[in-house]
Amino acid sequence: MNSEIFERHESEVRSYCRSFPTVFTRSKNSELFDEDGKRYIDFFCGAGALNYGHNNEYIKNKILDYIKNDGVIHSLDMHTSAKREFIETLEKTILEPRGLDYKIMFPAPTGTNAIEAALKVARKVKKRSNIFAMMGAFHGMTLGSLSLTTDECSRGGAGVPLTNVTHIPAPYMFPELDTIKYMETLITDDHSGVELPAAIFIETVQSEGGIHVFSDEWLRRLRALCDKYDILLVVDDIQVGCGRTGSFFSFERAGIVPDIVALSKSIGGIGLPFAILLFKPELDMWKPGEHNGTFRGNNPAFVAAKAALEIFNNENIASETVRKGCISASFIEKEILTINPKLVMRGIGLVIGIDFAQLGGGDTAKLVMNKAFEKGIIIERVGRDNAVLKVMPPLTISDELLIEGLEKLRDAIKEVL
Amino acid sequence: MNSEIFERHESEVRSYCRSFPTVFTRSKNSELFDEDGKRYIDFFCGAGALNYGHNNEYIKNKILDYIKNDGVIHSLDMHTSAKREFIETLEKTILEPRGLDYKIMFPAPTGTNAIEAALKVARKVKKRSNIFAMMGAFHGMTLGSLSLTTDECSRGGAGVPLTNVTHIPAPYMFPELDTIKYMETLITDDHSGVELPAAIFIETVQSEGGIHVFSDEWLRRLRALCDKYDILLVVDDIQVGCGRTGSFFSFERAGIVPDIVALSKSIGGIGLPFAILLFKPELDMWKPGEHNGTFRGNNPAFVAAKAALEIFNNENIASETVRKGCISASFIEKEILTINPKLVMRGIGLVIGIDFAQLGGGDTAKLVMNKAFEKGIIIERVGRDNAVLKVMPPLTISDELLIEGLEKLRDAIKEVL
Amino acid sequence: MNSEIFERHESEVRSYCRSFPTVFTRSKNSELFDEDGKRYIDFFCGAGALNYGHNNEYIKNKILDYIKNDGVIHSLDMHTSAKREFIETLEKTILEPRGLDYKIMFPAPTGTNAIEAALKVARKVKKRSNIFAMMGAFHGMTLGSLSLTTDECSRGGAGVPLTNVTHIPAPYMFPELDTIKYMETLITDDHSGVELPAAIFIETVQSEGGIHVFSDEWLRRLRALCDKYDILLVVDDIQVGCGRTGSFFSFERAGIVPDIVALSKSIGGIGLPFAILLFKPELDMWKPGEHNGTFRGNNPAFVAAKAALEIFNNENIASETVRKGCISASFIEKEILTINPKLVMRGIGLVIGIDFAQLGGGDTAKLVMNKAFEKGIIIERVGRDNAVLKVMPPLTISDELLIEGLEKLRDAIKEVL
Amino acid sequence: MNSEIFERHESEVRSYCRSFPTVFTRSKNSELFDEDGKRYIDFFCGAGALNYGHNNEYIKNKILDYIKNDGVIHSLDMHTSAKREFIETLEKTILEPRGLDYKIMFPAPTGTNAIEAALKVARKVKKRSNIFAMMGAFHGMTLGSLSLTTDECSRGGAGVPLTNVTHIPAPYMFPELDTIKYMETLITDDHSGVELPAAIFIETVQSEGGIHVFSDEWLRRLRALCDKYDILLVVDDIQVGCGRTGSFFSFERAGIVPDIVALSKSIGGIGLPFAILLFKPELDMWKPGEHNGTFRGNNPAFVAAKAALEIFNNENIASETVRKGCISASFIEKEILTINPKLVMRGIGLVIGIDFAQLGGGDTAKLVMNKAFEKGIIIERVGRDNAVLKVMPPLTISDELLIEGLEKLRDAIKEVL
Repeated sequence: MNSEIFERHESEVRSYCRSFPTVFTRSKNSELFDEDGKRYIDFFCGAGALNYGHNNEYIKNKILDYIKNDGVIHSLDMHTSAKREFIETLEKTILEPRGLDYKIMFPAPTGTNAIEAALKVARKVKKRSNIFAMMGAFHGMTLGSLSLTTDECSRGGAGVPLTNVTHIPAPYMFPELDTIKYMETLITDDHSGVELPAAIFIETVQSEGGIHVFSDEWLRRLRALCDKYDILLVVDDIQVGCGRTGSFFSFERAGIVPDIVALSKSIGGIGLPFAILLFKPELDMWKPGEHNGTFRGNNPAFVAAKAALEIFNNENIASETVRKGCISASFIEKEILTINPKLVMRGIGLVIGIDFAQLGGGDTAKLVMNKAFEKGIIIERVGRDNAVLKVMPPLTISDELLIEGLEKLRDAIKEVL
Repeated sequence: MNSEIFERHESEVRSYCRSFPTVFTRSKNSELFDEDGKRYIDFFCGAGALNYGHNNEYIKNKILDYIKNDGVIHSLDMHTSAKREFIETLEKTILEPRGLDYKIMFPAPTGTNAIEAALKVARKVKKRSNIFAMMGAFHGMTLGSLSLTTDECSRGGAGVPLTNVTHIPAPYMFPELDTIKYMETLITDDHSGVELPAAIFIETVQSEGGIHVFSDEWLRRLRALCDKYDILLVVDDIQVGCGRTGSFFSFERAGIVPDIVALSKSIGGIGLPFAILLFKPELDMWKPGEHNGTFRGNNPAFVAAKAALEIFNNENIASETVRKGCISASFIEKEILTINPKLVMRGIGLVIGIDFAQLGGGDTAKLVMNKAFEKGIIIERVGRDNAVLKVMPPLTISDELLIEGLEKLRDAIKEVL
Repeated sequence: MNSEIFERHESEVRSYCRSFPTVFTRSKNSELFDEDGKRYIDFFCGAGALNYGHNNEYIKNKILDYIKNDGVIHSLDMHTSAKREFIETLEKTILEPRGLDYKIMFPAPTGTNAIEAALKVARKVKKRSNIFAMMGAFHGMTLGSLSLTTDECSRGGAGVPLTNVTHIPAPYMFPELDTIKYMETLITDDHSGVELPAAIFIETVQSEGGIHVFSDEWLRRLRALCDKYDILLVVDDIQVGCGRTGSFFSFERAGIVPDIVALSKSIGGIGLPFAILLFKPELDMWKPGEHNGTFRGNNPAFVAAKAALEIFNNENIASETVRKGCISASFIEKEILTINPKLVMRGIGLVIGIDFAQLGGGDTAKLVMNKAFEKGIIIERVGRDNAVLKVMPPLTISDELLIEGLEKLRDAIKEVL
Repeated sequence: MNSEIFERHESEVRSYCRSFPTVFTRSKNSELFDEDGKRYIDFFCGAGALNYGHNNEYIKNKILDYIKNDGVIHSLDMHTSAKREFIETLEKTILEPRGLDYKIMFPAPTGTNAIEAALKVARKVKKRSNIFAMMGAFHGMTLGSLSLTTDECSRGGAGVPLTNVTHIPAPYMFPELDTIKYMETLITDDHSGVELPAAIFIETVQSEGGIHVFSDEWLRRLRALCDKYDILLVVDDIQVGCGRTGSFFSFERAGIVPDIVALSKSIGGIGLPFAILLFKPELDMWKPGEHNGTFRGNNPAFVAAKAALEIFNNENIASETVRKGCISASFIEKEILTINPKLVMRGIGLVIGIDFAQLGGGDTAKLVMNKAFEKGIIIERVGRDNAVLKVMPPLTISDELLIEGLEKLRDAIKEVL
């Protein structure tokens, strides 16, 4: 492996390459290959951007055809046929069947662009500056999104105070505290010192925060709270949307309809930069060009996204995800949690965390991650103290590879503990 | 043309599609084609993202090969061979020949991500929160970048006060005022009310601001000012870098070396989302992961960028740009400015503005833009009151198409005036 | 009564004159007299500024003598003999006997000046911008203090977002939540989204917040928390210091030593504007003149304050306050709470609240206040919904007047309920 | 002199006592006396708070009578006869004769309280957060006022970024720049990056900024600018109002009417804390209690202020100030500026600066200040680098003392240069 050029020329800010110290050259479905030919099973999945696997053949061919035929690649917000087909497909196969009446915004192709746009919509429409976000949240790294994001390292990079956001304890943090009632008190108490928010931003599953699944009941009560006090509910479905939890949107299980939904990562699911913001039509109070971005018309990503939605529907990705999630959870319960009673599992669908907080925390999790890498498994750490291993393979992983990966992970944990 | 689906489902925020009301399906080099088969010469160039033309054959084939062979598409900041080759090529063919010793950061693939990262670097390293930015500047739309950006419409979308930035009059605004001396007074006067900045952000050519070229002398004095007071000089070369002004970096003409340089749009030049931040090694004080982004490892863009740099060097893009810029400026001077003495031309290389401020301003410019569109020219308005038409074709445009486009533009102006 | 000139010329911002609609001309000890000669017992006490009663004869004569002899009235922070004598008396009779080693700062003569100075000290010394303040708190109305203050009406006047403060639930708000543990979690959780504060500001008794007494145990745990995490503990003793709770400082009962203490209102206790900030010597990192104010050398107030401290010590104000507090609490318990079981009493020393929250809230409390005014009692409403009547007579009130006042208050409540 | 107790117990923040190192015990009219019996002529005048001299006999007797008779001392915003008489006198003798229709607000008794209230009024009424303030300005030390204040030392104490204010170059800073036109450009240029302000705050004479008098013409153009763009004009007349420039309000000379006027320091002129805010009736959109302060009803200050207004009118203070200003300016011109051609004089009425910027700056000015102190003159330094000596005696100083003081100052300058 020759990584010297990275060390010499690339910024110290790089991180994952330190966890997975090799040079990758090729990838296919759920596997990566490095330049020494070593094979890795991908339990990391591009941090959620590769739900349909690396170089998914169907999606890839659509992209190749499009580019070969000199389809428009870059169009800002001009109309293209590729964009039209994506909108039609999203509308017909995702929104309409779920009874969702959303306007679609293309805010520029990264998740943080979508969150920044959501902040603008919320503050503009409600004419309020404050926002509620949950402790444990990750919403992005640009200044607006970063003010929502909670991890100390990221916030420390800001260099200026992060303002206009009130962080609310997540429901799992203080079990004795009813966090919905807590928010209601902040809102109604005329001496709380906290301003009525324009919106509440949540991830229904805090993934970077350590795989914490918010209950259906809690989500429904949150929706009711927002309705009662004229607050917008914004769901950041960037990491756990697009099928990850066993339904297209992660909030479907609770039967709620957010006012605004941010999607990115796996809309196309093959790794091309893309993000959209969905919001109720009455919130569409934008002036033309009031938010923009050079790469908001990334047409290969439109093509990929249309193809991905076709796969999602034609290959029953939702139910497959539920099935594979069950396989994984069962395996972990029987084969991994039994290694040590202090191990904890949390998750939903195909995003499952194994928490080492009671077993040495991040240090142990790191040893396991390294050991797993040796064994050919790519798996990331998340959450407090980076103590949680996140099992997040492509939704299209074969049962065989899934089991192989889990077995190797089990072995890695055994060897470390 | 069927654009009904956009009107029904897409947010009101869309803007360019209102100026260019058709649906594009195909594009090649300097031409776009809509679904009725109508041809357009592209003087807009993806707002600077398509310096090498639509579907540039050399770049396109490299991308197709890479994807066909299941090259890794999405890698976050893990090492890939595609990334290594891009870094090597940038290093060997761009940085080393110019004596530039920069670390490279991949901050996520849009210009505003790079600017947000630059803000963090500057504030972190200098431990100061204030930043100087120039009136007329455009640096992006996320909250940090937006605080630098100056246009009223964009800022109005923020919904919260934009803070920690001091805007400095651009040199062309008050000719009687020495703006370098002005900044020095703000810095040294113990009663200015303005805090010492961590950095001064500039575009050497304000493009969105109306095609205002800052003089070499002014740039050199700015560099000296920054040196004298320990302030970082940040050049946002997102729109006018990558050859646009007749050299790879726009600041080369002044013989200065910025501390930080942001590049995006045309690094790859075929329209794939990509951005990098370059900074002096001593500024590389990042903690691992302190800034990140899901799509910072967009490998098809690495492949495109390597190919683009090869074209830049092999096809003498720099000198070609100078030559075509001369052709354009001569044509405009003789054929367009002569239409009415109140027309004003400004520019450098292949970014040239025709200012209608004295001739009805934005309203006139809009009529011309519409008329040009009818004649098959895509051209954008920028600057105060949107009164400036920006002539910005691909750098690889053929002389024939360039002349044809300029002639049609001339005819459009004649017809309107 | 002729109040027409106030209505015509004075701003609508005036408030107490609406509760007590008459024109006062004379006052003595615990009584006020209006221009119709009507007498009022003062259970309001200048919002805590008149602990020694109106025109306290001893203090008043000291002031008269000082002014008669052309003592320096206004001295900014120049040395005067009056200031020296105040410092000596404070040092000898208050600080030394309690083992308190504080530097004294004269930040300008209002409570909010002292709080603003405390904010500066804390942020400067700890190099952190965040501050913790308690929900229910009142710390003043200038922009820094106001960011700590919690009531909706006051905050609504700011006109800009109030930033750099995290509001913490007060211990009485969520009995199920251990608020010390809550703060510790915010501080230690690397995903709380809340920055380590420079200081925690508290009132040991939230007076404007509705007469909520923080327990000794809670205060001791707070002190320990601050020690553990290198956070400054700031006690705002502006309203409940200077003897009000039965000891000179309100925190003495808990046996804790704050890092910073703000005093104002009743240092002199006769109503002259005055405030001081006390802090541990190692925090005295001010540059000369880094904080100032024209009226920080109000010498008649120094003279009054010295005299007041003499009274405090010579007349056993502390123990007298405890005794009168017991009389009051007993009376209220037997004669008032028995009127309706939904009435709630809270308090300590001579600051006692009667809470009507369960009996119609602020509307009922207002009716009682008005009825009491008719009967010649001046009493203020505080707390959520202004539902709490605050019994706060001068500490020097005679037992007879105290009983008379309480009887009239009882009668007013009876008549209203 | 025994100042040991100050050094041991008082904060390092004290400043004037370092310039005037003695302990003062008595003062009368324009003279101070220290405890060694040494006499000082006061050219400092309590930073403008003692326009009628120390212990002015007329004012003093009114205060003594009021207190002797147990007048209400402290009343918050309740009605008192003393307050009514002050309002009547202000109305009849100051506002009505000048045709000024202002509402009066008592914001708490320090200048910075008044400025904070003015900021709230402006932002609330105009629903905008930005404010323009002039470079060189001093408006106070609490967080809102401090964001307007310009000197580096004061701002450095804030500990958080000071936001929502745009500082405008003062007209004397860049003579080549038309600062009214500059502001108009910031307001009208859609790419200035500067938000339309709610208000422009000015001192008509920057006193702490170094005695810079803004011209009548400039003030009139500023008033017109504010009218044209619906911006409030706020005059901070705290230091140079109340007769100091030769008319009651400092803006009378320009024939303009500000929307809001802040007064403090010398309303009473004997040194008691007091401040008022005047504003046009249509701006009185306060909710009751939306701004408050414990000491906003300082009745001895009302009594003093009424007496002071009587003196102002009965003793022709305005014309006397003009006359004594002429005497001073003539003396300085003939006797002091002639010492060295690099000395510069600026001023109006009885606020005159002697600028040592070209003669060693603050270091020289300090030597002169010290030498003058030795000779029995109290005089302060202001402005950039503290290089300007500010001649600011009581307006009631006798001609003899004025000349004596100026002679001693001349001698001090001679000896130092």
